[in-house]
Amino acid sequence: MNGADLLCDTLLAGGVDTCFANPGTSEMHFVAALDRKPAMRCVLGLFEGVVTGAADGYARMAGKPAATLLHLGPGLANGLANVHNAKRARSPMVNIVGDHATYHLKYDAPLTSDIESLARPMSHWVGRVAGADAVSRDAAQAIAQARSAPGRIATLILPADAAWGETSAALAPIPAPLPRAKVLQPHIQTAVAAIRSGRRTTLMLSGVALRADALQVAGRIAKATGVRLLAQQSNARMERGAGRVAIERVPYPVEQALAALQDVEHLILVGAKAPVAFFAYPGKPSSMLPEHCQVLQLADPGDDLLDALHWLADELGVGADVRPEVMELQRPALPTGALTPAAVATALAALMPEHSILCDESVSSGRNLFQFTRTVPQHDYLQITGGAIGLGLPLAAGAAIACPDRKVICLEADGSGMYTLQALWTHAREQLDVVTIVFANRSYAILHGELRSVGAGAPGANARRMLDLDQPALQWTQLAAGMGIESGRATSAESFCQLLGAAMARRGPFLIEAVL
Amino acid sequence: MNGADLLCDTLLAGGVDTCFANPGTSEMHFVAALDRKPAMRCVLGLFEGVVTGAADGYARMAGKPAATLLHLGPGLANGLANVHNAKRARSPMVNIVGDHATYHLKYDAPLTSDIESLARPMSHWVGRVAGADAVSRDAAQAIAQARSAPGRIATLILPADAAWGETSAALAPIPAPLPRAKVLQPHIQTAVAAIRSGRRTTLMLSGVALRADALQVAGRIAKATGVRLLAQQSNARMERGAGRVAIERVPYPVEQALAALQDVEHLILVGAKAPVAFFAYPGKPSSMLPEHCQVLQLADPGDDLLDALHWLADELGVGADVRPEVMELQRPALPTGALTPAAVATALAALMPEHSILCDESVSSGRNLFQFTRTVPQHDYLQITGGAIGLGLPLAAGAAIACPDRKVICLEADGSGMYTLQALWTHAREQLDVVTIVFANRSYAILHGELRSVGAGAPGANARRMLDLDQPALQWTQLAAGMGIESGRATSAESFCQLLGAAMARRGPFLIEAVL
Repeated sequence: MNGADLLCDTLLAGGVDTCFANPGTSEMHFVAALDRKPAMRCVLGLFEGVVTGAADGYARMAGKPAATLLHLGPGLANGLANVHNAKRARSPMVNIVGDHATYHLKYDAPLTSDIESLARPMSHWVGRVAGADAVSRDAAQAIAQARSAPGRIATLILPADAAWGETSAALAPIPAPLPRAKVLQPHIQTAVAAIRSGRRTTLMLSGVALRADALQVAGRIAKATGVRLLAQQSNARMERGAGRVAIERVPYPVEQALAALQDVEHLILVGAKAPVAFFAYPGKPSSMLPEHCQVLQLADPGDDLLDALHWLADELGVGADVRPEVMELQRPALPTGALTPAAVATALAALMPEHSILCDESVSSGRNLFQFTRTVPQHDYLQITGGAIGLGLPLAAGAAIACPDRKVICLEADGSGMYTLQALWTHAREQLDVVTIVFANRSYAILHGELRSVGAGAPGANARRMLDLDQPALQWTQLAAGMGIESGRATSAESFCQLLGAAMARRGPFLIEAVL
Repeated sequence: MNGADLLCDTLLAGGVDTCFANPGTSEMHFVAALDRKPAMRCVLGLFEGVVTGAADGYARMAGKPAATLLHLGPGLANGLANVHNAKRARSPMVNIVGDHATYHLKYDAPLTSDIESLARPMSHWVGRVAGADAVSRDAAQAIAQARSAPGRIATLILPADAAWGETSAALAPIPAPLPRAKVLQPHIQTAVAAIRSGRRTTLMLSGVALRADALQVAGRIAKATGVRLLAQQSNARMERGAGRVAIERVPYPVEQALAALQDVEHLILVGAKAPVAFFAYPGKPSSMLPEHCQVLQLADPGDDLLDALHWLADELGVGADVRPEVMELQRPALPTGALTPAAVATALAALMPEHSILCDESVSSGRNLFQFTRTVPQHDYLQITGGAIGLGLPLAAGAAIACPDRKVICLEADGSGMYTLQALWTHAREQLDVVTIVFANRSYAILHGELRSVGAGAPGANARRMLDLDQPALQWTQLAAGMGIESGRATSAESFCQLLGAAMARRGPFLIEAVL
């Protein structure tokens, strides 16, 4: 067999059975090998940002890595923004980047570039296969890296001759992922002391501490001790809805974040990072914490967060009989009148089915979505974690492939949606059960706000040329049709509800352009 | 004034008066500064690959750099594939990449990444502004780097606090670009000896040696000495058409390239690289030259190629009275019948106006275009130089902005067009005189060929899922309409000619979907 076959076998042996791909000539032997492996699901993206963003969405919902297949340095570069988001989400991912045959590199053919330098900033681990005999060993290492808690980005560079070279090397053993580490007792004791100190204490959660089981324990602790729960501003995945413990997030705007945290005296991190401003602004702080707030690390993101919370509850004497505050099911009435962001959120809260997966890249338009969906049926909520816009549509594709029986709802701003709109074609190609809602405000609304906050006054001609998307207005229904997606345009709350209701009642991809 | 204002002033003082932009929050002070400079033309791209590809097209036609404005590491990453193409085209470019304020970096906010590592592979020069006082000096250096012959990629990282910081620093002087270097006499003498040796000698040209004036001199040398002229396989810009010296290019397929070069005994490089295979293939060579071919370097890409050719002609005793072979104007009859790639090329040859700019990313569908357009009215021919597909539509945008009085014709494969289709919106926004022809074969046709050449036999389910674009078929007329571009679909040679004729007779953006 050749190296490419052995690579496929290694991926499958490591449980990596989904490959998001945008191949080129140097990957043809790998494509031919994939063609011989019907157990591998191959999903084409028409742009690499679709490929990597889908792999992120898949990993967040499947809890295991997908492979990506990318074409040399430029192909990797096109996918890096969403690898950045995946890295910040702590999603596992195995990137296979084809390169020229080893002996061909010295000729500096047009597509030659320094792939390692490109890969490192967005990867936890970068490797280059030395030859066909090394393929399985190196791929096994990449898989093991990706599966290390809490999830890592492994990028494996595959020279074409390592793919096409014959090998009799055996399938390398793939080490089982290490269990998540138990936290150390002193961390528990420090947290207990803080909570018992009587000073205002917040448990800040992220990662798997935002799953329902961990939130249940955290909710018991909060109920019994009065400690406050708070989630990071942006998180890979939250389990929410009726019957679950609700948790607020740190607000995005600096002033609101500072206000939300102004009274915190102890901040205990449970797989979370201490809150910082998304961007720096003149005269505003970088840290969102008050000066004398003490930050304590209960558990790192890769630790066993559920166990840590159980242990903490035990040490605090919080028994299983303590009942946390959970949300009761409550749906709003359907909105009427003007189609505003609030109307969209209300309609969604009224109509979204149980077990939905919300992929939220609604940016400024969706700021209030979170509060509208606290009491709706149980669902998962996925966010853009690294701030690199262009994740939403690919993320939805990956989530839908990981969870084919769940409705995926993608909330997309028109500005950010344009970065990777090619994902709509993958929605159509794979007939994914994804409903995309485009908030069509026809501007980079968030940047208009930022420009105002810079004190630049009303935008002039050059600023408007860089911040407005209204000349011409994007026609999302036509963009969708161009990629084989049925769609509708809503200009009132009533027409939006009608479209959303119809989309929820059917399976398959659909797009609603919500003209705000 | 603040650093951002000083940066704008420095750019304008350096002749950089066009800024292709996709800004974010960290660039808001720069946006506000641009807003105060009506002399700067700001052009928005809805994805960074549009921004950098347009800057490349602009540079190729304007002969000077544009600035790009990109948003931190992920924004740069999104633009890198087309920076790679620009680097291979030796286009000058000044990338301004916003970063967090210096003091904010240590907080590792979500968008933080190692921008330098990302920038280096695709840049000749990377700098980071130390503060507002250093802005002008650093920008002047970036401009000087970009303007160094034959053209360099300068990437300047601009921390937000360097943009918003107050400064009283003076505008830094920007050194005038050095004139292109004269080649050394021994190079001329070696070339003369080779040509006079009686052995089969080829002059291989690229860069500015493919402009009409240099080709005229090369044509005189060829006429008088029997030396053969040949261009690189892919070139940034060629001046072609009736009244000019025609020059063939090294073919893309390895077998054809080897055949075209099999008799060469001396290869004299004039701003060109010795030909190598675009990709490596098992059992095929990397160099396209026969074993005993001697490669001589007459002139580097940054040398004064026109002067070198004049000097060579003089040394060879080729007088100004020698008349080179030039193409006579000849247009084909309009094609009829089935719409094939040849029919598209024939129609184009029949109808394209004088001084057109052809931006060719037609990949496999356009392989014969070059030969069909040898004798048409004078035009420029721009290619994808680095093999990173997704350049065509942005390149056309930049060329049209550099040359508003010329018709730009973008020849785009459907597969490669999808990578940066957002450029169509910029065509509409700026009302650019660009006619886009999409070769809609609904597959990665080139990869089907490569898969065959791998010996994989007929593609199976997984391979087809990665190589075919037909389920669903992309509807380019609707994609165009979604971005405000008028369009038509042609399914026969006759309907294509009708649409093309109409598009040539009007100004402004138009798209023709040629269903093959």
